[in-house]
Parts: sequence; C-alpha cells; structure tokens
Amino acid sequence: MPDQVLDDISHRRYNPLTGSWLLVSPHRTKRPWQGAQESPSKNELPDYDPKCYLCPGNQRAQGDSNPDYKNTFAFVNDYSAVKEEQQEYHPETNKNDIASLLLQARPVTGRCYVLTFSAKHDTTLADMTPQEILPVIKTWTRIYASHLSSSHPLADQAEQVLATIPPNPDGEIEPPKHQLKNMQIFENKGAAMGCSNPHPHCQIWTTSTLPEEPGKELTNMGKYRADNDGRHLLGDYVKLELQKEERVVWQNDSFLVVCPWWALWPFEVLILAKRHVRALVDLTDVERLQFAEVVQEVARRYDNLFETNFPYSSGIHQAPLDCTEEEAETSWFHMHFYPPLLRSATVKKFLVGYELMAEPQRDITPEQAAARLRGCGGELYRRSL
Amino acid sequence: MPDQVLDDISHRRYNPLTGSWLLVSPHRTKRPWQGAQESPSKNELPDYDPKCYLCPGNQRAQGDSNPDYKNTFAFVNDYSAVKEEQQEYHPETNKNDIASLLLQARPVTGRCYVLTFSAKHDTTLADMTPQEILPVIKTWTRIYASHLSSSHPLADQAEQVLATIPPNPDGEIEPPKHQLKNMQIFENKGAAMGCSNPHPHCQIWTTSTLPEEPGKELTNMGKYRADNDGRHLLGDYVKLELQKEERVVWQNDSFLVVCPWWALWPFEVLILAKRHVRALVDLTDVERLQFAEVVQEVARRYDNLFETNFPYSSGIHQAPLDCTEEEAETSWFHMHFYPPLLRSATVKKFLVGYELMAEPQRDITPEQAAARLRGCGGELYRRSL
Ligand SMILES: O=P(O)(O)O[C@H]1O[C@H](CO)[C@@H](O)[C@H](O)[C@H]1O
Ligand SMILES: O=P(O)(O)O[C@H]1O[C@H](CO)[C@@H](O)[C@H](O)[C@H]1O
Repeated sequence: MPDQVLDDISHRRYNPLTGSWLLVSPHRTKRPWQGAQESPSKNELPDYDPKCYLCPGNQRAQGDSNPDYKNTFAFVNDYSAVKEEQQEYHPETNKNDIASLLLQARPVTGRCYVLTFSAKHDTTLADMTPQEILPVIKTWTRIYASHLSSSHPLADQAEQVLATIPPNPDGEIEPPKHQLKNMQIFENKGAAMGCSNPHPHCQIWTTSTLPEEPGKELTNMGKYRADNDGRHLLGDYVKLELQKEERVVWQNDSFLVVCPWWALWPFEVLILAKRHVRALVDLTDVERLQFAEVVQEVARRYDNLFETNFPYSSGIHQAPLDCTEEEAETSWFHMHFYPPLLRSATVKKFLVGYELMAEPQRDITPEQAAARLRGCGGELYRRSL
Repeated sequence: MPDQVLDDISHRRYNPLTGSWLLVSPHRTKRPWQGAQESPSKNELPDYDPKCYLCPGNQRAQGDSNPDYKNTFAFVNDYSAVKEEQQEYHPETNKNDIASLLLQARPVTGRCYVLTFSAKHDTTLADMTPQEILPVIKTWTRIYASHLSSSHPLADQAEQVLATIPPNPDGEIEPPKHQLKNMQIFENKGAAMGCSNPHPHCQIWTTSTLPEEPGKELTNMGKYRADNDGRHLLGDYVKLELQKEERVVWQNDSFLVVCPWWALWPFEVLILAKRHVRALVDLTDVERLQFAEVVQEVARRYDNLFETNFPYSSGIHQAPLDCTEEEAETSWFHMHFYPPLLRSATVKKFLVGYELMAEPQRDITPEQAAARLRGCGGELYRRSL
C-alpha cells in the first residue's frame, strides 16, 4: 500500500469538491503547546433559563415572545445578515473603468431564520435520541420545501412533503416574498465556534445569490459528471470509501460517515447520502429517521472523543432553491462537520497565519482521525458519570 | 455617490486577487453578544523569561541553545510542518481510476524558520521604532535572497542584497539543499491567533510547491495584466484608492495602507508598494526603512484602536522563489493583516458556520473600519499610561 507512507511525510491532498489543495503534516502534533487553551465547556446549565431568548415563552431582544413550543421552533432572526427588503443598488459597470473592475459590489437580499432543536435549554444533539432529532429533520425539510418555486425541478417532491409532513404545531415559516437562490442550513455549536447561546439551535440563511462554497461544489461536481460519463463525484466517492474502509467512521443503510481524504479540520467528518439524494425533499420516511440517526451518531462520538461538549460548525449542502434541471441532478446531499479541537477538550487547531496567507494545513491524517472516531461509539460519556 | 447606499444594505463584494466574493452586512454589529469573550491580553511580561524558548541564551525544546543575540535571530523550527528530507512518495496516477481522481496526494518538502523580532521578550512591533524594525526587514530580505537560484529573474538583485546588507552577526541561515518553490513569511500575534509564545517573532515556511493563496493571486494578477494592456492589478488599485481616499488609512512615499474594498476581517488592512516592487530584494535602502515605518504604523494603530495588544495574522506576498520572468513581473509586493477583533478588546468576529459552509461574511464596511483606523494615530496608548 504506497499510501502508508503518507502517515509519516508532509504532503498535499486535493479536495475535488472545492478544487483546492491543503497541506498535511502528520508528525506535527508532537510540538509543545504554550498557547491558548479553551475553557472546557461545563454542562451545568438549567433545562430552562429565564434570560435565554430561545427558551419557550421567553421574550426576544426585539420584543417578540416565543410560543410555549414543545420540540422545535423557527423564527426570523432579529439580527439577520440579509433582509428581504432594502434600498436598491445598481452598480455602474463599465468594462473599461478601473473602478468597475476593482470595486465590484452586488446587492444581496434574503431571510435568516433561527431554529431551536429542543425546548430544553441544556440538551444537545448528542443527548437527544434519533426520534427526538426527527422533528428537526422534518422542520428543515418543510422549510426547504416551502422555499421552492413551482417551476423548480424538485417541485413535485416539495409538494408531497408539504402534504405529508404535518406543519409544526408551534408555528410555520411564511414563504419568502421573492424567490430566493440558496438556503444554507448550519449550526455553530460551542463558544469556540462563535455560538452566542448554548440553547440547542441552528440557523438557516436564505439568499438571492448562490454563495461561494456551494457554488464551487456545484461547478466541480458538474465537471466531474461531464468528464466521467455522467457518474457523480460523491457517488463514486461513497463507493471508493466503502471499499477502502480506512476513513469510514460509521454507516447505516442510507448514510455513510467518513473523515474525508481532504479533511482540513482535525476531526472533520462528512455525512454522505449513499444513493443519489438531491435535497432534503428527496428523503423517504425511513431515510429521514436514518439521517436523524447518523447526525446523532456523529454528535455523540464527538462528545465521547475528548469527554466534552464538543464544539463544531456543521452545514448541509443540497440543490439550490432556484436551479436548472441539470444543477438539481448534479447536487448530492451531504453534511459537513468542522470541529476545531485537536489534542484535547482544551487545545484547538488554529487556522491562522500560514493557513490564511498560503494554504490550509492540518497536523494529523484523516485516517488517524477516523480510527479515533471509530473507537468512540457506545453510550454518551455523560450518561455514565 | 451611489456607493453610499452600501453603508446600509447587505451586499457582496468581489476580491479580484482571489477571484471570490464575500458577504457584507453593515447593520449587523447591533446584535447583542452573549458568546465568547477573549481575555484582554495583559502586557505584564518580563523583558527576559528563562522559560521562553526564544529568549537569548535559552535552551530550546530539542536541546539547541539560542545565541546571546542582540536584535533578530533566525533558526530552523524544531517542529517544522515540512522537512527537507523525507521518504519518497510516488502516487499512482491513472486517469481512468476513481482513486487517482478522488484520493490525490503529492509530497511536499521544504524548510520552516522561526525569526525573532527582538531580544526583548515583552516587546511588539507596536512598541518598536522603525529603526528597531529595520533589522527584521533586512533579515527577511537576506533570507529571501539566499533562497533564490542563480537563474531566478531577480538573481542580480539578490546578489546585490547579499553583497550590501551585512549578515546577521548572530548567525546566518544556510541555503536550502534543494531549490524550493515558495517562501511564506507570516506572523501569528496573540493567543487569539494561535500564537503559542508572546516573544515577538514570525515564521517563514519555504515549500517545494506553490501554495493555494499566492497561486490564486498570481493567476488573477496575470489575467488582469493580460486583459488590461499589461497594467498591474495592484498598481491600478493603488491609483484608485489614492483618488477615492475613503479606504486609505495611512501612507508614506513608498507604501500605502488601505482597508481593502474586499476586506473580510473586521479591521483587515493591506500594505501596498506604490511602485512596482516584485519582492523584498527590489527594495532600496530608503524603501526598506519606509517599509519598517509602515509596519510600525499599522501595528501601533491596531493597538491604539481598542487599547490592547491587538492580535492578528500578517503575511507578505511577493515573487515565488522559483518562477518565470513573466511570473516575477506579475508579482506586486504587498502585506496582508488579518485581525479577528470586531467590537472591543474582548469580542472577536468568528468566521464559522455560514462563513465556512457558504461564504465569508463581515459586519462593518471596510470604509467604516478605515475611518476608525485613521483616527488611531499618535503615540502608542501604553506609553501614556
Ligand atoms: O507554528 P505554531 O506557532 O506552533 O502554530 C501556529 O501557527 C501555525 C501556522 O499558521 C498553525 O498551523 C498552528 O495551528 C498555530 O497554532
Ligand atoms: O448569528 P450569530 O450566532 O450571532 O453569529 C455567529 O454565526 C454567524 C454565522 O456563521 C457569524 O457570522 C458570527 O460571526 C458568529 O458569531
């Protein structure tokens, strides 16, 4: 196996989804650490916090009150990064003018939501059961469905979702005023990942433009299909990882969890649909539960790894809200997890000077990370404390 | 001025150096903050620390002792991310094999240096005078020069540098064993930027491959020249910013400091050579001192902004160590500063969920940041405490 040598030497790996390289220095964790330590996150929260703007019944910053919701609750972010209505802006674009080339701006509109995972202030996805996570998956699916136009390639699937998954009894999201281009569902978990409230929640930002990352992925997946007789990049990747095994963390019938070959964050994982799922609305009832199960599995293994409330940012990539038949077909449902911790509950990997100025760099191999995570199954460590 | 509206609306801006977009949400700093606070960095360090592996005379982790150096001192990092000699790796590349497409790796060799800025443990670039920073600039220049081959387009300039700037009396760096491709000079300052030792220092990583960021910049600068009658992207940009003024922070005869139009980090700045300088070896004696002056100016203004020891990562981009005449000609010497602080000495901007999964996002405009930094001149705040 010539790849074995990669455990010992510095090398670059290629990320075919983004079309870029990263530097891997497997021997580098041996260096001493005198730098910043994260405070280990204690789980000493109450299950209801009267000051939390996400707990049921509480008042939010701009005066609205939360309903006395039971599991999930979605609302428009009081401090949205993008808004549906704003002043117009029409940039002058004159190809021969330096300013038009070097000072380019375009307006972006949209709507940002916050979605709680549970009424309980002190829980996390790692503490919840797949059955308890299922309402989150269903809400994601309904919100995605309600943002598709009737001409979207997945419009029929969306309609079926809206007809069969019952609306959230604690209030539904209104459809957007204008058709938007993209929906990014993501979670920032833990203070180390900029999360400002421990109440379990995610955010959903919808925008009038296709953002950089999903844009790059779509382009690269499209090229791969064109060059490889219509085969899917991530479809081929699933097959390959199931054969190779060394980066596989866990799987069920519908989903595969790997530390991808091109992982940048120390314990980065990728959840991949095993069959060609284009977006949330493609999932069957069984697959939705299996998706809840795989999300639970990742969150619990993460917490078990360093026996801590493990910080990460996660996000779902799927077909854009507004896309061609071809783009929908090119999309392959997956979820990224980017956790910063490297050595312990308190020492993280900083992506700083060299990483920002030159090239992303990691210190252990994805194969080593996968082996660690494979060993972290079993009950959540806090249960047995 | 139609651009005025950008102070109030969400928009995307284009970074012509990297060819990518970022999201700007000017109204967003108004939201409440219950998240992580950085510990304000106290400056209560001794000027010599017997436990510091960078202080003069001390022993380092792997047993070597530092000389009793006077200003700067450079040595090969005891825990280098890349090494000059390692086992060979020859990836199989078969265009029709999925593994060759999706599991790509390439070996990287090189050498990593650490360079102290001063013998004093408790100083920073903000505390030093331009005259005191000059030896740092000279050491950077000599190290760069000593890594160019005799066939490099800047070989003559390098030879002149080695003949006229005297070697560091406390020891010189040996030329590399094999010709390398790129040299990245960068500083991680402050615990918030992953710095593990407050002793003022930077790192210099040389590699056998051209990293992603300088690679993208070179490509985009090359395209710009091809499309614009041989004019330089950053040359045109300097002219434009001098005309517009609203993003200018400071300037001297040789260098301009701006918060670039496409700045991502809250108080990101870019130091630009005003004339076409391709690399450190192109600088004249006067320009080297003016470069020391501009670096001092940025560091001091940063510290004055929130009256703190301001964290940042900075890095120099210039011609690669191994490049064609055309690539050297396309290079335009500049230095990036990426500081994480947003609102105060303790609240930083997290580039997390949306930023990692979708698109980089900032909360104030670069024009607002530039106005703040223009007002931060004058004596270093700690001097008058
Ligand atoms: O080399 P240091 O200072 O130990 O390490 C620091 O800088 C490196 C280069 O940006 C990063 O890879 C590390 O994550 C960071 O902690
Ligand atoms: O929206 P929040 O939770 O206040 O903010 C957090 O997530 C956002 C989206 O990733 C980031 O832009 C912020 O820097 C981060 O603190």
